[in-house]
Amino acid sequence: MADNLTEQLHVIGAAARAAARILSVTSAEAKNTALLAMANNLLESSAAILEANTLDLEAGKKNGLSEAMLDRLRLDEKSLGAMATGIRTAASLPDPVGRVLKEWTKENGLAFQKISVPIGVIGIIYESRPNVTSDAAVLCLKAGNAVILRGGSEAIHSNKAIATALQAGAAQAGLPSTAIQLVQVIDREAVRILCEMDQYLDCMIPRGGKGLIETVSRHARMPVIKHYDGICAVYVDQAADLSMARDIILNAKCQRPGVCNAAETLLLHRDIAAAFLNEGAKALLDQGVELRCDKETLDLIPESLKSAHPDLLKEATEVDFRTEFLSLTLAVKIVGSVDEAITHIESHGSHHSDVIVTADQATAEKFLQNVDSATVYWNASTRFTDGGEFGFGCEIGISTDKLHARGPMALEELTSYKYLIRGTGQVR
Amino acid sequence: MADNLTEQLHVIGAAARAAARILSVTSAEAKNTALLAMANNLLESSAAILEANTLDLEAGKKNGLSEAMLDRLRLDEKSLGAMATGIRTAASLPDPVGRVLKEWTKENGLAFQKISVPIGVIGIIYESRPNVTSDAAVLCLKAGNAVILRGGSEAIHSNKAIATALQAGAAQAGLPSTAIQLVQVIDREAVRILCEMDQYLDCMIPRGGKGLIETVSRHARMPVIKHYDGICAVYVDQAADLSMARDIILNAKCQRPGVCNAAETLLLHRDIAAAFLNEGAKALLDQGVELRCDKETLDLIPESLKSAHPDLLKEATEVDFRTEFLSLTLAVKIVGSVDEAITHIESHGSHHSDVIVTADQATAEKFLQNVDSATVYWNASTRFTDGGEFGFGCEIGISTDKLHARGPMALEELTSYKYLIRGTGQVR
Repeated sequence: MADNLTEQLHVIGAAARAAARILSVTSAEAKNTALLAMANNLLESSAAILEANTLDLEAGKKNGLSEAMLDRLRLDEKSLGAMATGIRTAASLPDPVGRVLKEWTKENGLAFQKISVPIGVIGIIYESRPNVTSDAAVLCLKAGNAVILRGGSEAIHSNKAIATALQAGAAQAGLPSTAIQLVQVIDREAVRILCEMDQYLDCMIPRGGKGLIETVSRHARMPVIKHYDGICAVYVDQAADLSMARDIILNAKCQRPGVCNAAETLLLHRDIAAAFLNEGAKALLDQGVELRCDKETLDLIPESLKSAHPDLLKEATEVDFRTEFLSLTLAVKIVGSVDEAITHIESHGSHHSDVIVTADQATAEKFLQNVDSATVYWNASTRFTDGGEFGFGCEIGISTDKLHARGPMALEELTSYKYLIRGTGQVR
Repeated sequence: MADNLTEQLHVIGAAARAAARILSVTSAEAKNTALLAMANNLLESSAAILEANTLDLEAGKKNGLSEAMLDRLRLDEKSLGAMATGIRTAASLPDPVGRVLKEWTKENGLAFQKISVPIGVIGIIYESRPNVTSDAAVLCLKAGNAVILRGGSEAIHSNKAIATALQAGAAQAGLPSTAIQLVQVIDREAVRILCEMDQYLDCMIPRGGKGLIETVSRHARMPVIKHYDGICAVYVDQAADLSMARDIILNAKCQRPGVCNAAETLLLHRDIAAAFLNEGAKALLDQGVELRCDKETLDLIPESLKSAHPDLLKEATEVDFRTEFLSLTLAVKIVGSVDEAITHIESHGSHHSDVIVTADQATAEKFLQNVDSATVYWNASTRFTDGGEFGFGCEIGISTDKLHARGPMALEELTSYKYLIRGTGQVR
């Protein structure tokens, strides 16, 4: 059985490698034509996809999936429409392949050119949301890569139906249908085997919970680009505009609390803590945000607020400052200086997105330079850490790694490069 | 013992992380001052280093190391001088940190800046050559990274003496001596433990044989940048200038046969094969190159050459075309077209450095675009795949990976990046 599984996966790997070879020399126009055919085919297959989705939802209910998980699993005409729009947007974006990244000529006459090329074959291992099947496949294809998808077992029917629709679209437009392949084996052993197939896979991108990412990192023999936690902090400096600070933390915490770029920690400079909390704490509590405060903060919160929201005010533990709540919960702490804020963020945060609110440029620059996070903000919300908000047009995730891709990962980050060197007979 | 070893290595890891924090905000000037102090200290410590090297050489002889291995291990005043020169060159190069890689402003007024930053802590696992201790440490430091070095047991005394000299130099200039740390444990288990320390190490660079690279790839939980084989090919097209082709293959094969950018395969277009071989084969044989030829090539080699060099002409096996000889051996094959050459290189080569020799621009461009190697040449020798020859001023190796760094890896490739975003209160 295991040998059979290995064999099956190696067939998929070899087919992906062959498809990648073709994609790497496919023109931008041909790729975009294929993408549009994929979008059309996805919409034309909506009945079949929704039927498959119903099977997954019924199985999910039987297996006792939570309402939140069922919700992530659920597809409808609207979500299929969003997938198709995503594909058409990808088709309209500039081609990330063949960009001249650098050129120079040496004294010996050799002309160097560094150009972007596809990575090759990318593995995407993901959990419940079936839209990843389309979103990830499309971005990989746009960047000239073949993709091997391995979704969660709970979405297997939906993923299969979506992948089939995309493959048919690609094939209609003359691209190999093996440019997009879905591993349909439920056995978890499949992930481990894929992780060892470095002769076929150039890169692995796990998208899901910490357990999944750790499994892939532990087993993968090829590079892994991880999308870990966002334990993001907003630091309100002594020179902050307090109403701006309030608006930023409200947005960063409440606009979409379940995502990685939502704020989880609020750091207040001691000199403005009381003044900020008067209005700021009220605004957060009014939104239903539970505040886990250090002792000093708790003492500064007006008694009227404490009696109005007895359930939303708690004393913080050390663990709260290292937690990605992904809910309307915020850890709050008072610090004595921007240096103390930086030290806290460096030791407790996850190097994702952090903010300083201040009117003082020198303090802001210190924070920007010293906080070692993928994105560091001065006077703006953490919520802008997003491929779309960056102007990238799309994203495959937010990398928390420091190699190859850091922060929002879009089409350019799905490419590698090579050097072309043109000479006239030069030797050493 | 194992627990003790783990603990020891974790102490080193934590110290490196703390040093990286300091280095990341150290000015270019301070780093360069430290580098110059390190160069001076290395030279001043030459007696101690050479004494330590003698211990390694004596132990090596006792343990039966080959003459080639002893040679790689051996240090003298000249090699120490070269190390010091390398350090001074690094000091003179532009700082790779703080470069603005991109900037743009969105309609909402957010100003984005993508800037280069150090990676953090880099692990270098290497074999016999003690000069790697200095070369690797210096490049990591120049790029603002702390380094954990783990050399081979056969060079332990030399490595220790070199690392001590460098650390003292760094400390004299006010940098933490823990910016450079050498793991002095002989136990091979140390490599496995280091590979799991992803809380401290951001990246691992193994430098050595295939066995070492595979061990590190298998165990590492952090990104690994691999420097594998160079199975490099020179393809002589039907439209080639044959004397240029001869000069290029002679240089690519013979100038330094033991390195990864030396050529291992010669592909000849059928139409020029006989003409090329008349002079080309003679030139190679005169240099002592053993030619492992496919049947068709062998038939074309003039009888006079066959009788003059009976030991240097052999029929090639399939394995020869997948072998990195690293010696004066060359596999030779006739192909019918540039497409066949490309297919051969893609299926047999190692995606390192490949060459087309031709006067036909369209054929050259086809080769350049279709060969998926780190460096692809038109009318020049493979031997230019080198950080110095590229104009990078230095190199830590030639990456055969496609993520983060591909081809010559120098200071820029030893950095990551982050986004700085300056706003005026923007929220979503």
